[in-house]
Amino acid sequence: MPSEIPDIVISRLPVYLRALERLSQEGQEVTSSHELGRRLGISSAQIRKDLSHFGGFGKQGTGYKIAFLKDQLRSVLKVEREWHVALIGAGDLGSAIARYRGFADRGFHIRWVFDSAPEKVGRKLGPYTILPISNLSETVRANHVKIAMVAVPAEYAQAVTDTLVASGVEAILNYAPINLKVPDNVHVQYIDPVLHLQRMTYYLSE
Amino acid sequence: MPSEIPDIVISRLPVYLRALERLSQEGQEVTSSHELGRRLGISSAQIRKDLSHFGGFGKQGTGYKIAFLKDQLRSVLKVEREWHVALIGAGDLGSAIARYRGFADRGFHIRWVFDSAPEKVGRKLGPYTILPISNLSETVRANHVKIAMVAVPAEYAQAVTDTLVASGVEAILNYAPINLKVPDNVHVQYIDPVLHLQRMTYYLSE
Repeated sequence: MPSEIPDIVISRLPVYLRALERLSQEGQEVTSSHELGRRLGISSAQIRKDLSHFGGFGKQGTGYKIAFLKDQLRSVLKVEREWHVALIGAGDLGSAIARYRGFADRGFHIRWVFDSAPEKVGRKLGPYTILPISNLSETVRANHVKIAMVAVPAEYAQAVTDTLVASGVEAILNYAPINLKVPDNVHVQYIDPVLHLQRMTYYLSE
Repeated sequence: MPSEIPDIVISRLPVYLRALERLSQEGQEVTSSHELGRRLGISSAQIRKDLSHFGGFGKQGTGYKIAFLKDQLRSVLKVEREWHVALIGAGDLGSAIARYRGFADRGFHIRWVFDSAPEKVGRKLGPYTILPISNLSETVRANHVKIAMVAVPAEYAQAVTDTLVASGVEAILNYAPINLKVPDNVHVQYIDPVLHLQRMTYYLSE
């Protein structure tokens, strides 16, 4: 498998995987680049080109075996395994994240929830006992945690991120409404639904 | 103001607006394309070019007046007003969305929450009384609702979307893990945090 797959291709693979999982649930066993393209609004040529980076999983005319292609994509994306995740922030948003079952269903298990507020530490949040932020660095190091979700107020997000990075975290899902500074070897993805809403209002009729 | 601003520019404006709001909160009154660029990891040339689509809000050497630029961006994006939003789905995810205060804080007010489950209809969810999905079309039409959030299971998301579009909704924030088909005049943005996690795991060290 080639080591250098363009980032833009990698960013599309989870979308393909999600569509394949959906097709599986619908009872389908084989698909084509055309069918995937129609479902996703992506050209079939683009899909074939993206998948060809991994040696080509399908043949013209016979289509893709969904189960096989799913396994291949999971392996490429390293999501065939279970990941343990640290969540920082047990406010409104952090609580919603901790209770959301969609992460564990797809292989991302929140194992630890941290907060800095003394009145929250030790309290239960769903299945978790909220841990003090002073334990964050030690916990991340001891458990070789690679993935963290940041759901603290904007003004604390960079400091929390710096601690995470210094402790070995390499991937951060940031819910705080602020852009984070991280070294090149650390990846950040942003979740801010209001940004997405604001990307649409421009187009609305009066 | 020109009517045709490239989509890619529009998609960056909410990020600029968020950074400017942050700078305001920090007490700053003037900024520069260089400072914004450093904060956002975007080149200052790109920022100046993006903002020049609106006639140029700043001058070389003097910087941007933050309050003025914020107002301009809000006006361009049509977020200087309050938007009323319908939320469809009052399960785990819909409940978390309904309780999240970050939407109203930034001008997006969830006004109605719908669900199809008879046992949920009529129940309270935070400040909302859950409405039957059979009322969706009428409510959207009567109130000229333009924006909806979809937080139903994947298998119902397309049907709900079809109803929304037929009733006049033009912008959908979709939390269901499925790609939606909509006419060209309707905009969809997707929130699926697991996709974002899967975009990072590829890069993690073993």
